Amino acid sequence: MKNDIFEYAPRLSRMKASIIREILKFSSRPGVISFAGGLPSPDSFPLKEFEQAVKDTIRQDGIRALQYTVTEGIPGLKKCLCQWLKKQKIFAEPKEMLLVHGSQQALDLLGKIFLAKGDYVLLENPSYLGAIQSFNTYQAKFVTADIDRGGIDLAKAEKQLKARKVKFIYVVPTFHNPAGVTMPVERRKGLLRLAQKYRVPIIEDDPYGLIRFKGSWVPSLYSLAKGKGVVYLSTFSKLLSPGIRLGYILAEEEIISKLVLAKQATTLQANTFIQYAVYHYCQHGYLEKHIPTIVKDYAHKAGLMIKYIREFFPPEVQVFEPEGGMFVWCILPKKLKASKVFERAIKKNVAFVEGSVFFPKGGGENTMRLNFTNSKDSDLKIGISRLGNVIKDLL
Amino acid sequence: MKNDIFEYAPRLSRMKASIIREILKFSSRPGVISFAGGLPSPDSFPLKEFEQAVKDTIRQDGIRALQYTVTEGIPGLKKCLCQWLKKQKIFAEPKEMLLVHGSQQALDLLGKIFLAKGDYVLLENPSYLGAIQSFNTYQAKFVTADIDRGGIDLAKAEKQLKARKVKFIYVVPTFHNPAGVTMPVERRKGLLRLAQKYRVPIIEDDPYGLIRFKGSWVPSLYSLAKGKGVVYLSTFSKLLSPGIRLGYILAEEEIISKLVLAKQATTLQANTFIQYAVYHYCQHGYLEKHIPTIVKDYAHKAGLMIKYIREFFPPEVQVFEPEGGMFVWCILPKKLKASKVFERAIKKNVAFVEGSVFFPKGGGENTMRLNFTNSKDSDLKIGISRLGNVIKDLL
Repeated sequence: MKNDIFEYAPRLSRMKASIIREILKFSSRPGVISFAGGLPSPDSFPLKEFEQAVKDTIRQDGIRALQYTVTEGIPGLKKCLCQWLKKQKIFAEPKEMLLVHGSQQALDLLGKIFLAKGDYVLLENPSYLGAIQSFNTYQAKFVTADIDRGGIDLAKAEKQLKARKVKFIYVVPTFHNPAGVTMPVERRKGLLRLAQKYRVPIIEDDPYGLIRFKGSWVPSLYSLAKGKGVVYLSTFSKLLSPGIRLGYILAEEEIISKLVLAKQATTLQANTFIQYAVYHYCQHGYLEKHIPTIVKDYAHKAGLMIKYIREFFPPEVQVFEPEGGMFVWCILPKKLKASKVFERAIKKNVAFVEGSVFFPKGGGENTMRLNFTNSKDSDLKIGISRLGNVIKDLL
Repeated sequence: MKNDIFEYAPRLSRMKASIIREILKFSSRPGVISFAGGLPSPDSFPLKEFEQAVKDTIRQDGIRALQYTVTEGIPGLKKCLCQWLKKQKIFAEPKEMLLVHGSQQALDLLGKIFLAKGDYVLLENPSYLGAIQSFNTYQAKFVTADIDRGGIDLAKAEKQLKARKVKFIYVVPTFHNPAGVTMPVERRKGLLRLAQKYRVPIIEDDPYGLIRFKGSWVPSLYSLAKGKGVVYLSTFSKLLSPGIRLGYILAEEEIISKLVLAKQATTLQANTFIQYAVYHYCQHGYLEKHIPTIVKDYAHKAGLMIKYIREFFPPEVQVFEPEGGMFVWCILPKKLKASKVFERAIKKNVAFVEGSVFFPKGGGENTMRLNFTNSKDSDLKIGISRLGNVIKDLL
């Protein structure tokens, strides 16, 4: 310990800087082509519509929007969102919803109410880094089940559930981060059966579900379970703006009441001003109107990335082509470490995320996560061709 | 346990709904005169200036303001704030600042990096409820030192520090919540000497420091300590708007780097849009320009409350007249419980907070916290006269 006055809590040893957030700093340098972040396309932001919503907020809700409000979230917004969710066949009452500062806060609050030191969490292998980070701060232990092109492997999941008491299962079933895969409905039903058999709740994280540009709609685990035993998380980060830090949790009313306690002790309530702005945004019907624009943009960018990968990557690289979301997952031949590729790529001003950071128990050294949403068309070509050359050189 | 699938963490038993947040719901009913919350006066919100700042944000930073940004906070805002703080004789570099979702989040993040289960925290008796709630979620143990009209009693504080290893001391030295008192500079120096002697850091929470309407300026503990061994928290909740949920932490760079890790795992970063808005607000010089308006308003309201207390309360009630901030603290004769007063007052549509909720180890049953900032002049008279009648009836 350098500092002899301040003494840190043991949990700090589990807390590491997100490599993705670190790469974010590097990526902002001019000339760098970054496939690293999970940043939405700047073109996807509905600036004009948001401006209108903000104007409405100031004109119609002025003082109210600047004041404290109840922890649960403003009733008008919750009502509007529940109606909007109904159209996605997600049925929840406003009392089953809590508004939070992005779904990262949802993960933290869930950790806070559920996880004691040493509790087991079942994660997909690989899994979303932000969830790993969050649950790490509560000193959870992780068990994992591999995923394939249809999501979590049920036999492997059951093996883990049988071996020990697991506090909850955390999954990103639609357009997975990092692997981009989506669980078909039958696999979803299988996972719910497992959860019921072993009496384990599921946390379903669904930030990308509405950004589908191929294939057909699959119901959420939350819908399939009729809201029982499943906690559903989503966010406006990918549909509107990540900068406004607004997300929501759907869960049984009793769970929401506990999350409210946790939220009071952490940030009191979600941003009132932003809640009113998103309320007006939702009231205008912008949420629905804007999504096709994003889908079209991302379909185009994903198509280009896949096209250039086929053109410039050697055929030995396995590519997971997504039906939606923001990521393409690549598996290099076993002998080639992504860290080697990263080292050389960065010198050519191309960044991506080494897949290994998403493996909670280690492994995945030969995997790469490529984000396509935040690059210009021309950069997609240049960046992928440079990456292809690096990989070919190293093989 | 009602719910046999979800199993909560033991820390949940320490987490209780904030009585103040519960009263907030009651207070919003028409006809209720509330001295309960810590809500700024609606008249104190600089709606026009904030509207300008928001317009500038959309016009000048549009896309950037909607995107993710670095966890530390946007450099322009941190720079602007550091310059503004300099005028208050608070000297910090941008790298010694972290922007957070209100100072409630600061408390949570500090708990996260410092507190292991069973660690001792030294609190003022009474102490800010939000801090008690936050530290409770980390299963801290509390020791306390009473406060008098000059803040924390140093002899009592030293007794606690001598008896056991304390992780940190948490104080609100200026316009204390709930007691409204301010530590004179000599007492501050004494507390710093104690902290140094026992090698214990201090967390200085200063949400109200700039809202002084009487007496003269006192330097912060952070300034007196030249930033060593003291973590300083403040917020825009009382100077601009609590709805925008923006606050900041000043600390040694190493501490900030640990808080950044904790912030990544909880909410990634503070709201980008709001950070840009406050940046423009700060650039326009509105922060400085607007404060005298608030001070004038609160001086007036505090003056009225004190006047009506002298008029309507029986002389047996001890009143702590504040030099700034938002609260008047009343001590009833020992035999009279504030809960009795509350019970009757609520029937007459007057709300306040029973002081006992601010005593971490129990006690204070004969104390009351009265907020004067969120009531109209006429309601101050009616509410205090009703309260006076209730107290007289009960004595």
